[in-house]
Amino acid sequence: MAPDTTELVKHVLKGNRRAAARLMTLTESLSPEAHAAIKQLYPYTGKAHIIGITGPPGSGKSTLVDKLIEKYRSHNLSVGVVAVDPSSPFTGGALLGDRIRMNRFASDHDVFIRSMGSRGHLGGLAWATMDVVHILDAMGKDIIMVETVGAGQAEVDIVQLAETVVLLSVPGLGDDIQTIKAGIMEIGNIFAINKADLDGADRRFVELQSALSLGQEGDGWEPPILKVVATTGEGIEDLVKAIQDHHEYLVESEEIVKNRERRCYAQLETIIERSFIRKLLMDPDERTLFDKLVAEVDQRKTDPYTAAERLILHLIKTPKK
Amino acid sequence: MAPDTTELVKHVLKGNRRAAARLMTLTESLSPEAHAAIKQLYPYTGKAHIIGITGPPGSGKSTLVDKLIEKYRSHNLSVGVVAVDPSSPFTGGALLGDRIRMNRFASDHDVFIRSMGSRGHLGGLAWATMDVVHILDAMGKDIIMVETVGAGQAEVDIVQLAETVVLLSVPGLGDDIQTIKAGIMEIGNIFAINKADLDGADRRFVELQSALSLGQEGDGWEPPILKVVATTGEGIEDLVKAIQDHHEYLVESEEIVKNRERRCYAQLETIIERSFIRKLLMDPDERTLFDKLVAEVDQRKTDPYTAAERLILHLIKTPKK
Repeated sequence: MAPDTTELVKHVLKGNRRAAARLMTLTESLSPEAHAAIKQLYPYTGKAHIIGITGPPGSGKSTLVDKLIEKYRSHNLSVGVVAVDPSSPFTGGALLGDRIRMNRFASDHDVFIRSMGSRGHLGGLAWATMDVVHILDAMGKDIIMVETVGAGQAEVDIVQLAETVVLLSVPGLGDDIQTIKAGIMEIGNIFAINKADLDGADRRFVELQSALSLGQEGDGWEPPILKVVATTGEGIEDLVKAIQDHHEYLVESEEIVKNRERRCYAQLETIIERSFIRKLLMDPDERTLFDKLVAEVDQRKTDPYTAAERLILHLIKTPKK
Repeated sequence: MAPDTTELVKHVLKGNRRAAARLMTLTESLSPEAHAAIKQLYPYTGKAHIIGITGPPGSGKSTLVDKLIEKYRSHNLSVGVVAVDPSSPFTGGALLGDRIRMNRFASDHDVFIRSMGSRGHLGGLAWATMDVVHILDAMGKDIIMVETVGAGQAEVDIVQLAETVVLLSVPGLGDDIQTIKAGIMEIGNIFAINKADLDGADRRFVELQSALSLGQEGDGWEPPILKVVATTGEGIEDLVKAIQDHHEYLVESEEIVKNRERRCYAQLETIIERSFIRKLLMDPDERTLFDKLVAEVDQRKTDPYTAAERLILHLIKTPKK
């Protein structure tokens, strides 16, 4: 059953969608083959422009992303999409809605859409998303969009992946200005108000504007606020333009260098965290100690923090001086 | 500014709400004092019955939890609630809705409600929730309810904390039977259909019943399906009874022992993951190597997996044999 990693990698690098889908599934099951493949693919990554699209449920993210795909395709750019929904137990196009989305672009080999749910990603959705982005990047996609739901953890994690973050909102969804300010304003590079034909769009615009002016330090990039109607495609060209402008800003200001370093840092941190614990649990000796400490914590003979410290001290090398 | 940990712990153990709130805030900022306090509190934990309440947005979780609080109070049991909303950037009762909830029980010293958002919990919401549960437990709360939104990661994490999981749903919310089966059926010990006075409640009941019968292996506990109307309090007494029945089942079958061990295991794993990386980044030598590897990953001289392996190998002791 072991897939030929090198063969798989070869096909992914050629942009083969079946091979890419297969590798993504392997990645999600945390198979060693998948890690070997990512290692081989990694040198071919770093070329795509990675865009995060985030907003509350009901803000029309997937419709917007579909319109962006069409627009990018009309500019002859290839597109990869990772739709992350931590509240979905499904991964990999199992949802009916995703299948419909995929079908719209089924005949276009330069579009690849992958949906990721929480299934099988216990504590590792960000990690799995990272790998899928690497695969799309190595496939040669010019544009990679990472689409996430909500306004919390997932959005913060996106920042670790995306170079340009589009924050989507809609009029009258009830998230008041306070929430926006305190929460996620700082992660948005571009603000888009979807369903801008609805009542309240102007009010939303003013709210965003005043919230932005509060946070604004004049440090180069001033996040634009755009009105779009994803269903009709109104304003999408302007949004594509704004995304492009932001990318140019990143390159010219050399912010992109810092961005990418930050991303590598976060990636490495995530991988080390997960790898360390797996390594730990695979060593029979350490595993015995771990189990012993679990029992002690359970019996209140020790507490989890002290137990963790003991285990780590036992594992890591003593300081050299 | 360093708070006197021992003094704080003393007050928490007496059930002082201000001290508990203060310690929770410290915990959320990952302060070393907080860890010291948790270490001192930990021996006093393990007495509460921890109940997870989970369901999709709009299923009426907070109303249900409020009704459960009233019911438990009428049985003279003290109650702690942690309301976890990963999509909220706020923590600690900052949301208007939470303040209103708190006010309802403001004069009752045997009720403590804490809301937790994603703010400041980068990758560590489960960890922070764990600590808040420990604090409530050490305060002497008989019942601790952990309330979470959604149907994904958060729910899976709850299982690590809760002994009894109540899965809430409502008629006609559009989550079809497929989603339920594949996703979260297995984590529910009790199924509650809220807003059972609405059309579709019977259909929902039948759906749940058939989904449950598919997964049923007859291994002891058969999850009951209850109809409730949280707004009027209808069915709440039965729900309290079902939760109590499940607790008795856990104790009699000694499942509770395995449960608690599993929980300790998960806690220790989480703490080790986070502590290891923090320890790593605080050692100047390791930090230098880490930064060097970040740069190499960034320049595609190596890949994140290889870099992580090198760093871990550099850190951990070589095998003894």
